[in-house]
Amino acid sequence: MNTTVVKAYGSESPEADLKPLKIDRREITPTDVEIDILYCGVCHSDLHFAKNDWGMTQYPVVPGHEIVGKVTKVGDKVSNYKVGDLVAVGCLVDSCRTCNNCKNDLEQYCPEWVGTYGGFDKHLQTNTHGGYSETIVVDKDFVLKVPENLDLAGIAPVLCAGITTWSPLRHWNVGKDSKVAVVGLGGLGHMAIKLAHALGAHVTLFSRSTNKIEDAKSLGADQVVISTDDAQMQSVAGAFDIIIDTVPYVHDLNPYIGTLNTNGTLVVVGYLGPLDPMLVTVPMIMGRKSVAGSLIGGITETQELLDFCGKHNITSDVEVINIQEINTAYERMLKSDVKYRFVIDMKSIKN
Amino acid sequence: MNTTVVKAYGSESPEADLKPLKIDRREITPTDVEIDILYCGVCHSDLHFAKNDWGMTQYPVVPGHEIVGKVTKVGDKVSNYKVGDLVAVGCLVDSCRTCNNCKNDLEQYCPEWVGTYGGFDKHLQTNTHGGYSETIVVDKDFVLKVPENLDLAGIAPVLCAGITTWSPLRHWNVGKDSKVAVVGLGGLGHMAIKLAHALGAHVTLFSRSTNKIEDAKSLGADQVVISTDDAQMQSVAGAFDIIIDTVPYVHDLNPYIGTLNTNGTLVVVGYLGPLDPMLVTVPMIMGRKSVAGSLIGGITETQELLDFCGKHNITSDVEVINIQEINTAYERMLKSDVKYRFVIDMKSIKN
Repeated sequence: MNTTVVKAYGSESPEADLKPLKIDRREITPTDVEIDILYCGVCHSDLHFAKNDWGMTQYPVVPGHEIVGKVTKVGDKVSNYKVGDLVAVGCLVDSCRTCNNCKNDLEQYCPEWVGTYGGFDKHLQTNTHGGYSETIVVDKDFVLKVPENLDLAGIAPVLCAGITTWSPLRHWNVGKDSKVAVVGLGGLGHMAIKLAHALGAHVTLFSRSTNKIEDAKSLGADQVVISTDDAQMQSVAGAFDIIIDTVPYVHDLNPYIGTLNTNGTLVVVGYLGPLDPMLVTVPMIMGRKSVAGSLIGGITETQELLDFCGKHNITSDVEVINIQEINTAYERMLKSDVKYRFVIDMKSIKN
Repeated sequence: MNTTVVKAYGSESPEADLKPLKIDRREITPTDVEIDILYCGVCHSDLHFAKNDWGMTQYPVVPGHEIVGKVTKVGDKVSNYKVGDLVAVGCLVDSCRTCNNCKNDLEQYCPEWVGTYGGFDKHLQTNTHGGYSETIVVDKDFVLKVPENLDLAGIAPVLCAGITTWSPLRHWNVGKDSKVAVVGLGGLGHMAIKLAHALGAHVTLFSRSTNKIEDAKSLGADQVVISTDDAQMQSVAGAFDIIIDTVPYVHDLNPYIGTLNTNGTLVVVGYLGPLDPMLVTVPMIMGRKSVAGSLIGGITETQELLDFCGKHNITSDVEVINIQEINTAYERMLKSDVKYRFVIDMKSIKN
């Protein structure tokens, strides 16, 4: 198969900084779309993958799965996109297409889904490379349409941070009159607030500090509850239908369970690991409460979200950087020093 | 308020065996039903309460919340029951009737629900006394109709063991084509199998030993998976829509999470405490799986279950004892030496 060499940024070992690399992109197949990448969001997973925190990284790795770009070529069998279209690519670039999850538009739960980076490219027989690059070639069924009315840099994080919070809000039927709480105000948390608010819900942010109150309210939160203040926590006992927990490190879920209403669900979207301290079943049994996990979203659901963002004029609040600043951005991200997502202006890669 | 002294069996301290006691029953109010108790099931909670395992027992305690009897008196405002009717009383004898849970037929989650024993009797200003007694007086709204076609002793456990498993089966929409697994084959587990089977589901029992296979199949299980056998556990990876976990002591839920399908839920109904070892979020996130709790059921739902049992000719498998054997029965119950529920023939209390 013919390939094109393109510029990218990536890493060759867990210890190394990201640096300029050259990677191969396949020539389009009849069902492929070639995309000139305009913006790429910077997700915590990018950093975890670059550092091999999850023990599954194959090097070199080129991160990036919040991609916005413009179509430059389409294969013969592509009828839904044409050259010049504004498009996006999220965390998935392929799946088996035949399992029950795929048939039910839940490609993110397909056991064979192919990640935008770190997956396996069956055409090139190598690992896939993500959006920190000039171009990407993706099967038409995993390319998304981008509304024309939105800020392009601000759309990028919708592809991961946005869909990760949107999917549980939709699955658990959040709408007008829903009481939603969000734990954590980072890339995911700020999208959760915006989206829940736009869905008509009453939105609460749980925060450990008072200095996020103003920001949260300007994003659409109706109130902020300081989670370290027992009286404030008591005041929201039994209050919430759903809690979207975006915190990416180990923390105690038990205090939040007490703030769920009967039939309420706490959805963990940011933390992979054991629930330490241990979850206590008593309050779960006494109110038919659930603790659930949720992973990004399917392709149809992601398109639904992009359309919703277009209609409601929602984008992520971002800090746009050049690709040359990526290592500093990773350092700042580790300190939560970003409101609320770094997005790379990919034309900087041509410098 | 006038009272009648009746015979009962109960305990006066955590260390004491159960023994004959005399207790007061209130004269009926206009909305009350007086019931001559025919049978009372023996629940693990009875034992926990008698021994003050949950630190909330007030003595003397008279356990018993799986009550079947015959109406002997009704108040002026009772139109739904008449003398001679076969009736039942479960775990609840009152609730606030005004909160959202009460309004939604979820009295079991009312913060002020009154337990059949160990609750607070607002009429007598004492703690309520359960079904190990000759009679009980209960508000008409918490009395249930008993189908005439069923074995009366076998109905008693439906009031707690039955409804505890029925409620999650119904809440999580189990029906034809559902894949249900049950963990634990005791009072609750054997009812879960019978009820899930009668709802048309494919039913699997998880068991640690092979000697329960025949019994489980005769109760309606389609298969038994030995939970200590890795190959058998692997063979049901991703298989179940819902798992009803009836195990009453601390145990590892993580292996069961792996057997849930996408969107599957493991419902803990038997164990009150911390989830040790810790629950790991990874497989929950990777398949939008949930861990939930569930507590008995509401009054309307319990009536629905009794009617369902009547229609499908379902009762609990029981070993009928005299009240004088209750202390031995408790000892045997602690060793799981009962198939599957002790039920007291309450006419023995007159001996």
